[in-house]
Amino acid sequence: MATTTAIDFRSLTLDAPLPLDSGRELAGVQVAYETYGELAADKSNAVLIFHALTGDQFVAGTNPVTGKPGWWERMVGPGKPIDTDRFQVICANVIGSCLGSTGPSSTGPDGEPYGMEFPVITIRDMVRAQMAMLDMLGIEKLHAVVGGSMGGMQALSCAANFPERTDRVLAIATTARHTAQNIAFHEMGRQAIMADPNWHGGDYYHGEAPAKGLAVARMAAHITYLSEEGLTEKFGRRLQDREAKSFGFDADFQVESYLRYQGLSFTDRFDANSYLYITRAMDYFDLAEEHGGLLADAFRGAKDTRFCLVSFDTDWLYTTADMREVVHALNAVAAPVSFVELSAPYGHDSFLLDVPALDRVVEGFIA
Amino acid sequence: MATTTAIDFRSLTLDAPLPLDSGRELAGVQVAYETYGELAADKSNAVLIFHALTGDQFVAGTNPVTGKPGWWERMVGPGKPIDTDRFQVICANVIGSCLGSTGPSSTGPDGEPYGMEFPVITIRDMVRAQMAMLDMLGIEKLHAVVGGSMGGMQALSCAANFPERTDRVLAIATTARHTAQNIAFHEMGRQAIMADPNWHGGDYYHGEAPAKGLAVARMAAHITYLSEEGLTEKFGRRLQDREAKSFGFDADFQVESYLRYQGLSFTDRFDANSYLYITRAMDYFDLAEEHGGLLADAFRGAKDTRFCLVSFDTDWLYTTADMREVVHALNAVAAPVSFVELSAPYGHDSFLLDVPALDRVVEGFIA
Repeated sequence: MATTTAIDFRSLTLDAPLPLDSGRELAGVQVAYETYGELAADKSNAVLIFHALTGDQFVAGTNPVTGKPGWWERMVGPGKPIDTDRFQVICANVIGSCLGSTGPSSTGPDGEPYGMEFPVITIRDMVRAQMAMLDMLGIEKLHAVVGGSMGGMQALSCAANFPERTDRVLAIATTARHTAQNIAFHEMGRQAIMADPNWHGGDYYHGEAPAKGLAVARMAAHITYLSEEGLTEKFGRRLQDREAKSFGFDADFQVESYLRYQGLSFTDRFDANSYLYITRAMDYFDLAEEHGGLLADAFRGAKDTRFCLVSFDTDWLYTTADMREVVHALNAVAAPVSFVELSAPYGHDSFLLDVPALDRVVEGFIA
Repeated sequence: MATTTAIDFRSLTLDAPLPLDSGRELAGVQVAYETYGELAADKSNAVLIFHALTGDQFVAGTNPVTGKPGWWERMVGPGKPIDTDRFQVICANVIGSCLGSTGPSSTGPDGEPYGMEFPVITIRDMVRAQMAMLDMLGIEKLHAVVGGSMGGMQALSCAANFPERTDRVLAIATTARHTAQNIAFHEMGRQAIMADPNWHGGDYYHGEAPAKGLAVARMAAHITYLSEEGLTEKFGRRLQDREAKSFGFDADFQVESYLRYQGLSFTDRFDANSYLYITRAMDYFDLAEEHGGLLADAFRGAKDTRFCLVSFDTDWLYTTADMREVVHALNAVAAPVSFVELSAPYGHDSFLLDVPALDRVVEGFIA
């Protein structure tokens, strides 16, 4: 985390305390955000992109934290499917995260980092913070909201709770409800973090971070982002830099080496407490429950919103069956919705990777 | 682990050093085993059951470690599908484990527990130890070998490497090769154990065990043993002993509470180093690779052995597709094989649970 604190993130401070689903409120909320492209004089061309669990506001260009290209560089830019010559793309770091928006690593009212004193937040709270950001930017209505994975949850939550704020909703590789299996994987990751003695009940900002626990949590999550077919194709049982098995506990197999790298490199850029809070928000997500138990009721206010939903055939984290439930709910309120299951070998991560069919769907729907 | 050391396991000591696939050998190997039913005078009625990763030799009756019924009580006993009025069932604790057979927690040549000085073993090594045990028991040929999950790997390995030792092979919910995804889940679990500061490079037998790391490893594995449908049916998003979400990090959801319990209770009965060694053996398992790269070649010596293979439709750990590869290989060498995919909601764990169709398959094949 040392690397991120030195960066001066572009942000604004909300001018009123943010009410939260827990009943608490959060004062002095910072929302870090980036924009790409010019806002039209009538402010009619804004596209809000919501990021995923470990994502950030750096959609395109170079991410100043990692030095790597933005996470959706392939989708966002001049002449790209979400064309920044036509639209102004806005992306904000979610509250609870650690890339400039207020989260557990931010300084609380007592001058110390919040740690576990940070309130538990929900997906709706994340969206609420971003709507307040739009208010301050003077943007009443968006051309579209777009998101994959947890970004898609925010897009659906936005449609359900703030339908007047957007003309279009594009939700990719997502769900209206975390299942028992989804919760189980997250809980396992949280237990890995909390089992790390460096976690200290979340109060580790003056010492060593619980990097080993966070790395294990990330490894487990990473497995769920990939398909079995994709893993087999990418790694199979191939050995890492050796001719034969070592009969030891080094990373003999390429897949082991890859996972260790994914786990370790993640700990340089992400805060363990943020991981706890954001996974909790995702586990709490159940759009039907929020609206009296019937998913269709969540969308009653969004009849005039155009929806596009995309799932991937190899995504076993948020499946086509999960997405169909959203389609049925939208059909029940006669909202205009198009739905497509795309074929791609990469599992859940397909929404981030080279899937030309997705580019065409996104371009067609946004334009 | 304190509970198990007080138990006097029934065992024998192999009379010759055990050669291992690594090229090393292990002297003074103890094999702990149990028998159920009487051995016929001509020793023709022995059925060897191989146990799974965290299983043990206590197939039926009461497990003296846990005080609970044996793990296959429903399948083994007088008048049961594997009828101990007709057969003598033998089940041995695999080497590398911690229930009386030699493993990393056993005392090594220097008078101290082996820890990570224990040699890395393979599934074939486990089988080799059990064949040596049969030699000492004077049993040349078995009526059948039977196993589910890692037990099924041993059954297939036995067929491939010791085809003359058994008339029948019954392999359930298993595979001839660990895939990249299988390896990935195990590697994540091993990293969780090794990240626990109590692990101390495996040298913890005089201090506190790495229980937190082992619990996390077990939680992750447990998710892979259940189907998404099964988890949804069993837990869904139901809350644990509360009316509403707590907006905290307690186990709000029943599935969280269940997983925490599964993780913690496991650490009372299992050794973390054994978990490392046995998962490694499973990851190394690739029956084709062992036999020149072609799975059919593994079974060339087993043409006269009768095979029965069973998979479950909701098992995403070792799938029906994995099992079909074994069927194809057996077909290629014209071995007599029957194969059935059973429908059951419990995922991989189906082989241990109430699936009457499995009882009928087992009874029909063994009798």
